[in-house]
Amino acid sequence: MVDAGPCCVPSGAPAMSVERAEALSRQFKAIADPNRLRLVSLIYSSAENEACVCDLTELLSLGQPTVSHHLKILVDAGILHREKRGVWAYFSIVPGALDALAGVLTEPE
Amino acid sequence: MVDAGPCCVPSGAPAMSVERAEALSRQFKAIADPNRLRLVSLIYSSAENEACVCDLTELLSLGQPTVSHHLKILVDAGILHREKRGVWAYFSIVPGALDALAGVLTEPE
Repeated sequence: MVDAGPCCVPSGAPAMSVERAEALSRQFKAIADPNRLRLVSLIYSSAENEACVCDLTELLSLGQPTVSHHLKILVDAGILHREKRGVWAYFSIVPGALDALAGVLTEPE
Repeated sequence: MVDAGPCCVPSGAPAMSVERAEALSRQFKAIADPNRLRLVSLIYSSAENEACVCDLTELLSLGQPTVSHHLKILVDAGILHREKRGVWAYFSIVPGALDALAGVLTEPE
């Protein structure tokens, strides 16, 4: 095989650290699901920017265990906040969580 | 079981369509991997906003087949553009692709 020589001079740019990439990856994985994207969209669009499980279950035409499973993943990833009031759990978007992820995409450094 | 009554009045907000959620989910899945986040970050930070495989392989300390695999996923998702020049392939970020995804996060409707 012929040695093609260097393709370019390495830029020397530091890569995003492994630790930061892994933490961000967990949050992006939480959002990277069609049902979870729709849940976040519904909560964002709801009056008061919060919604209860029953509301979300009805709007998405999914079973409550399925919706609760997806909501838990979003809560564990720090994207949604869960608050129990009476018999119902209400979900809202953690302030700044989505903006922080968006910032990674607009300036992925 | 006692009927707890309605938790809230459904907002009637339309959910993001299934088709749009599935398309966006494919792009978020492409980015939701630590190595792919680091690749995008490196290309974004490179001079001329492009990098060749050899450069990326060296900076990430990964094998070239692994890097090529991750780059292909990003190209297939419409996030990276691939251009062959001579013996090397150069990768750049598709203009607007990351901004569009960021927009979904800042206004998830």
